[in-house]
Amino acid sequence: MAYTDRVKQILSWYPSDNPGTLTNLARLLNHGTLAGTGKLVILPVDQGFEHGPARSFGPNPAGYDPDYHAQLAIESGCNAYAAPLGFLEAIAGKLAGEIPLILKVNNSDSLAKTAAPMSAVTSSVKDAVRLGCTAVGYTIYPGSAARNEQYQDLRDIIAEAKSYGLPTVLWAYPRGALTKEGETAIDVVAYAAQISAQMGAHIIKVKPPTDFLEQAEAKKAFEKANISTKTLADRVREVVRSAFNGKRIVIFSGGEAKETSALMEDIKQIHQGGGFGSIMGRNAFQRPHDESIKLLKDVMNVFAGK
Amino acid sequence: MAYTDRVKQILSWYPSDNPGTLTNLARLLNHGTLAGTGKLVILPVDQGFEHGPARSFGPNPAGYDPDYHAQLAIESGCNAYAAPLGFLEAIAGKLAGEIPLILKVNNSDSLAKTAAPMSAVTSSVKDAVRLGCTAVGYTIYPGSAARNEQYQDLRDIIAEAKSYGLPTVLWAYPRGALTKEGETAIDVVAYAAQISAQMGAHIIKVKPPTDFLEQAEAKKAFEKANISTKTLADRVREVVRSAFNGKRIVIFSGGEAKETSALMEDIKQIHQGGGFGSIMGRNAFQRPHDESIKLLKDVMNVFAGK
Amino acid sequence: MAYTDRVKQILSWYPSDNPGTLTNLARLLNHGTLAGTGKLVILPVDQGFEHGPARSFGPNPAGYDPDYHAQLAIESGCNAYAAPLGFLEAIAGKLAGEIPLILKVNNSDSLAKTAAPMSAVTSSVKDAVRLGCTAVGYTIYPGSAARNEQYQDLRDIIAEAKSYGLPTVLWAYPRGALTKEGETAIDVVAYAAQISAQMGAHIIKVKPPTDFLEQAEAKKAFEKANISTKTLADRVREVVRSAFNGKRIVIFSGGEAKETSALMEDIKQIHQGGGFGSIMGRNAFQRPHDESIKLLKDVMNVFAGK
Amino acid sequence: MAYTDRVKQILSWYPSDNPGTLTNLARLLNHGTLAGTGKLVILPVDQGFEHGPARSFGPNPAGYDPDYHAQLAIESGCNAYAAPLGFLEAIAGKLAGEIPLILKVNNSDSLAKTAAPMSAVTSSVKDAVRLGCTAVGYTIYPGSAARNEQYQDLRDIIAEAKSYGLPTVLWAYPRGALTKEGETAIDVVAYAAQISAQMGAHIIKVKPPTDFLEQAEAKKAFEKANISTKTLADRVREVVRSAFNGKRIVIFSGGEAKETSALMEDIKQIHQGGGFGSIMGRNAFQRPHDESIKLLKDVMNVFAGK
Amino acid sequence: MAYTDRVKQILSWYPSDNPGTLTNLARLLNHGTLAGTGKLVILPVDQGFEHGPARSFGPNPAGYDPDYHAQLAIESGCNAYAAPLGFLEAIAGKLAGEIPLILKVNNSDSLAKTAAPMSAVTSSVKDAVRLGCTAVGYTIYPGSAARNEQYQDLRDIIAEAKSYGLPTVLWAYPRGALTKEGETAIDVVAYAAQISAQMGAHIIKVKPPTDFLEQAEAKKAFEKANISTKTLADRVREVVRSAFNGKRIVIFSGGEAKETSALMEDIKQIHQGGGFGSIMGRNAFQRPHDESIKLLKDVMNVFAGK
Repeated sequence: MAYTDRVKQILSWYPSDNPGTLTNLARLLNHGTLAGTGKLVILPVDQGFEHGPARSFGPNPAGYDPDYHAQLAIESGCNAYAAPLGFLEAIAGKLAGEIPLILKVNNSDSLAKTAAPMSAVTSSVKDAVRLGCTAVGYTIYPGSAARNEQYQDLRDIIAEAKSYGLPTVLWAYPRGALTKEGETAIDVVAYAAQISAQMGAHIIKVKPPTDFLEQAEAKKAFEKANISTKTLADRVREVVRSAFNGKRIVIFSGGEAKETSALMEDIKQIHQGGGFGSIMGRNAFQRPHDESIKLLKDVMNVFAGK
Repeated sequence: MAYTDRVKQILSWYPSDNPGTLTNLARLLNHGTLAGTGKLVILPVDQGFEHGPARSFGPNPAGYDPDYHAQLAIESGCNAYAAPLGFLEAIAGKLAGEIPLILKVNNSDSLAKTAAPMSAVTSSVKDAVRLGCTAVGYTIYPGSAARNEQYQDLRDIIAEAKSYGLPTVLWAYPRGALTKEGETAIDVVAYAAQISAQMGAHIIKVKPPTDFLEQAEAKKAFEKANISTKTLADRVREVVRSAFNGKRIVIFSGGEAKETSALMEDIKQIHQGGGFGSIMGRNAFQRPHDESIKLLKDVMNVFAGK
Repeated sequence: MAYTDRVKQILSWYPSDNPGTLTNLARLLNHGTLAGTGKLVILPVDQGFEHGPARSFGPNPAGYDPDYHAQLAIESGCNAYAAPLGFLEAIAGKLAGEIPLILKVNNSDSLAKTAAPMSAVTSSVKDAVRLGCTAVGYTIYPGSAARNEQYQDLRDIIAEAKSYGLPTVLWAYPRGALTKEGETAIDVVAYAAQISAQMGAHIIKVKPPTDFLEQAEAKKAFEKANISTKTLADRVREVVRSAFNGKRIVIFSGGEAKETSALMEDIKQIHQGGGFGSIMGRNAFQRPHDESIKLLKDVMNVFAGK
Repeated sequence: MAYTDRVKQILSWYPSDNPGTLTNLARLLNHGTLAGTGKLVILPVDQGFEHGPARSFGPNPAGYDPDYHAQLAIESGCNAYAAPLGFLEAIAGKLAGEIPLILKVNNSDSLAKTAAPMSAVTSSVKDAVRLGCTAVGYTIYPGSAARNEQYQDLRDIIAEAKSYGLPTVLWAYPRGALTKEGETAIDVVAYAAQISAQMGAHIIKVKPPTDFLEQAEAKKAFEKANISTKTLADRVREVVRSAFNGKRIVIFSGGEAKETSALMEDIKQIHQGGGFGSIMGRNAFQRPHDESIKLLKDVMNVFAGK
Repeated sequence: MAYTDRVKQILSWYPSDNPGTLTNLARLLNHGTLAGTGKLVILPVDQGFEHGPARSFGPNPAGYDPDYHAQLAIESGCNAYAAPLGFLEAIAGKLAGEIPLILKVNNSDSLAKTAAPMSAVTSSVKDAVRLGCTAVGYTIYPGSAARNEQYQDLRDIIAEAKSYGLPTVLWAYPRGALTKEGETAIDVVAYAAQISAQMGAHIIKVKPPTDFLEQAEAKKAFEKANISTKTLADRVREVVRSAFNGKRIVIFSGGEAKETSALMEDIKQIHQGGGFGSIMGRNAFQRPHDESIKLLKDVMNVFAGK
């Protein structure tokens, strides 16, 4: 039951955190199929809030039920399950920690059409403590008009979470003063990972970057430094490097629901590029039950190096 | 006097709440004619604040008097009576819990015409405690410009209410970045129910949805998942499903004052679709006394399956 | 479901309490077999703490189990169940208010032999709120050396409880500067009832007084005023009169476990003397299950005037 | 990785606790060799504070080192390691939760000779949170002059710990108004277990009771109820029953350092009587390293039913 | 200017402290003549408060002046200067950290003769912050009647100091329930060092222990474990071992003013036994200026191994 050398190495990258925060970070790394490998696969289900119920759960109606997702995360062997307050309230008292929980403390709905993306803080760090969560989750939109307000809210949430021994998982989605293509450009995603690490996030979640460079100055720098961006593995390597030379945990989303073979190819590239794992929502829970279990297990096998 | 199996089942959906909050939730479910059935009919009278006195009480001037409404709720056998601070202050000390009270803690008047709908928080959770209320009520306007501010106020109110053992009844009225028709569109109402549940509301109140789909992406999802929206019963079923697969209590308003037979047809459809009950204001208290008693009893009969 | 005239009359004796406190007082009066009669039979189980487990539960070992007592109170139709924190924690979340709970916030064990009786405050008013209790309970020992400290703690607890809408049930056991016989003397018990009422207790619990007068001055006064103390009914009448001319609820304990016919005779006298009911612990839960149910129902029948 | 039925059953006995507290209780039950069995073996090392370093660590000088004990608990497969602040500070940041930690928040030294035993509160619940502890530990001395003060401090600590999701392990050592023999008398130990459960402790630690009855009234009760106290198994059964009919976790100390075969016989009897496990300090860490590992594993084998 | 391996090793013993506290601990270890050696010589001047001015400063009247002591500490190359609030207020603004300061936050005068020794808390952690201190100092009297109160105050001070990144230097002087000889007995001093370490002190200051064993039980333990107490070096070794096997910094006072050669012999033995240094007050500042400088330098030479 002793920690693996890899887990100990990862924990050593956070030398200024109190033992409580390290303990919960270790819990995330030591649960599920990937326990001890230093890799993570997390099931996030905030799409109900973000995109509405039919778009989220219509494809696999079992997902309307909050019990379904927590059980899916347990059965498939995920490291953790992340969701907004309501979904966690519906299961935390029953499961009592059977799967590590990440409370997504801010969320954004898509009923309102606003110029600048801005999530509401829909729950609190104290909610996370009361529900026995292992971490809190937060979303920032680097590049957006309200980014500074987001960074400042994040600052307070990270500080409060640490005071209770909770690490922070940061969703970083560039938006706003960017082209649509630029939102997943390699320079932009790497930059978002850097900002996240500088803000004090313990785990950083970004989208898989594309072979596109958004900012002229960045383009020059990439070329001058001869940074390859050809394969997804190359780009993942650059993003991970941008998060303190790989000394912060960076995980990647699957993005929009897609076909299995394409998805698995992405996972292999993420693994090859040194990504720490995946956070896989729609691609998992929108499939039929057995198929999603198989997919999650296949993904874990990749990260386990099997 | 033991709880019915249905009430126990409903309470089991809230496993993370403290016993105090569950106790008050049970009180709402165990009062009045529908006690023990898991169904609720609630009399809300916030129209005086929302629309002005003449528009609200002119049709049945007895309603100018706060005593009238509380007595109406008692006589008709409602589960609870909901109103703003003033109306509750006027009767709470006299009735001492003869009918469960829900303090509507925010309210919006229609003297000011503002771009974005936004209620004022007109009373506090502590007021609800002092008055012996069984729950607090709050209104959000998903889709509106100030929605995030509303969600954040709501978050604090839910947390404070829980600390005193009070559940929250959430009025969710989509507004703002929506067409007029879209405000009651089935996709929008279902989405509002999902947001309400994710925010941690114990009881969710929405308007009966219409057979209209507002959002293009949602339309695709409804079609692909083959979700029927033809009858009101179909649509109620989808809304209830959107509130944690029916594991949150969803009740429906009567909407604008209308003719009795149309109203009763709506009630039957709501019941048939698995709705947990009705919150019926103007349709009740604007009628003459005996007629409104009869109407409320007829509604209860439907939900009682008689 | 409207309140009976008697309940309304009783509530009218507490005109300075906030609606929340009146609501919870009404809940106690409106639950169980005696609902609405203005009479109360309460099951208290603090003997495990006060006398130790074997002395308390040895006679009927089912009572070692916290579930047993709550179920006994429900099945027999009691108005409420009173116990220390641990016993209530063990059932509150499961029952969610199926029976009104009274949290006994101070308790005294009999392992230590101290000169002056003094209970420890073993739980808080906030615990009562969190657990959904309907009232708090407290014990004072009028006549004892530490009585003033007890009165002052009680003052704070009554005030805090009221701020949450909780009434206080006060156990008043004269002790200390009294002869053993004097502890239940009619003048002393009546005096304890007066002190309890003056302290602001909503419900007062005393032992059945004996035909003995402890204090010389009191003896003179009783004789001069020609107050009969011959029968228990006479003495109960005087105690009730001493609690604001009957305008405070006074209930009586059964005292030490005793034979059924003697006990029932006491109950009849208490009823005849205008007592508001009984709080019956050991005499109930130490008997075999069916026998205790029968006893409690017989007692309720007396108070129901059947 | 799903919880066993036994763990789920044990958690169901605490229906009023928040999910955070249940989560940490589950962590204690799911760590080490006995994970999932519902049994616990805990290594406590507070003797340095209680008896001084030479008496505690002289027999096995490796124990002067704080690293030694934490490693001993890990290697032997204990459920948890309990110690005062200093010992935990010395290892928590390095181990980051490799073994669940219990912060012993009060401690008593034996330099001062006082009439009444009274521990100092030497650390805080917030320390436990900061150090990533899974529970807090506290000692009461039922029967002692300062017991009420201890109960009141305990009440505050339990309430604060729960607010952070931490369960409380209670050391209950009767002292004071008792004969020396009475401190471990079966009636007294059973009474201490009852008090502990009523105070709201989640896990109760007592000494193995002897076949002696201290209190005359208790003696009568034991005889009348025909409670056997002949074997240690009989007595353990009565103590466990006294903790809410076995619905609170009761573990037993090994008492003074003793010879191995006698100790193992005690363990077998504790297991046979339904004890939930052992808390074994001196008997473990004062032996040479390999011998103590063997002993702890032998003890776990007994509780595992091997 | 990189830290020496020894300093890094010492810092590694405090793995649960925040970087601020470690930084200030490192400042103490990296200042003055002994910088980097892991040894410390500290000049404390609290005798004015403790014994009165004439007894303290009469022998060398330059010491009446607060500037004198700070300059003495600087000139002699001490690691730090410790004093009560007034002495530090008199120089902190002028020196601005030229020498690390330790604010002695409690002090005891000898005008009052009290049964139980108990210092007053005469300044605050916030004072230490404002004055740019590197640590706070506190005195406990293990064995004394008020020890528990002292431990509890200490607990709060350590916690507050850490929150500002300040380590705590603890003066541990056994007193009270001990013979006069017992106050410096090796078993008692070792026990005091253990208590200090368990309380969370970063640096522990005790008196050089004598070859005497106060407690019967400890005497047995020392004999059984064959712990040598013959030379001061032996005894220092046992005290250091009692402070977490040497993983807490333990320094020794010079005790009462004495002749130079005897003092230097003590220092050599302390060094030989693995003591971390000396805290030398009266023995230094009561000598003429040049003599005290020479003495302090001689002492440092011993600890530097020259």
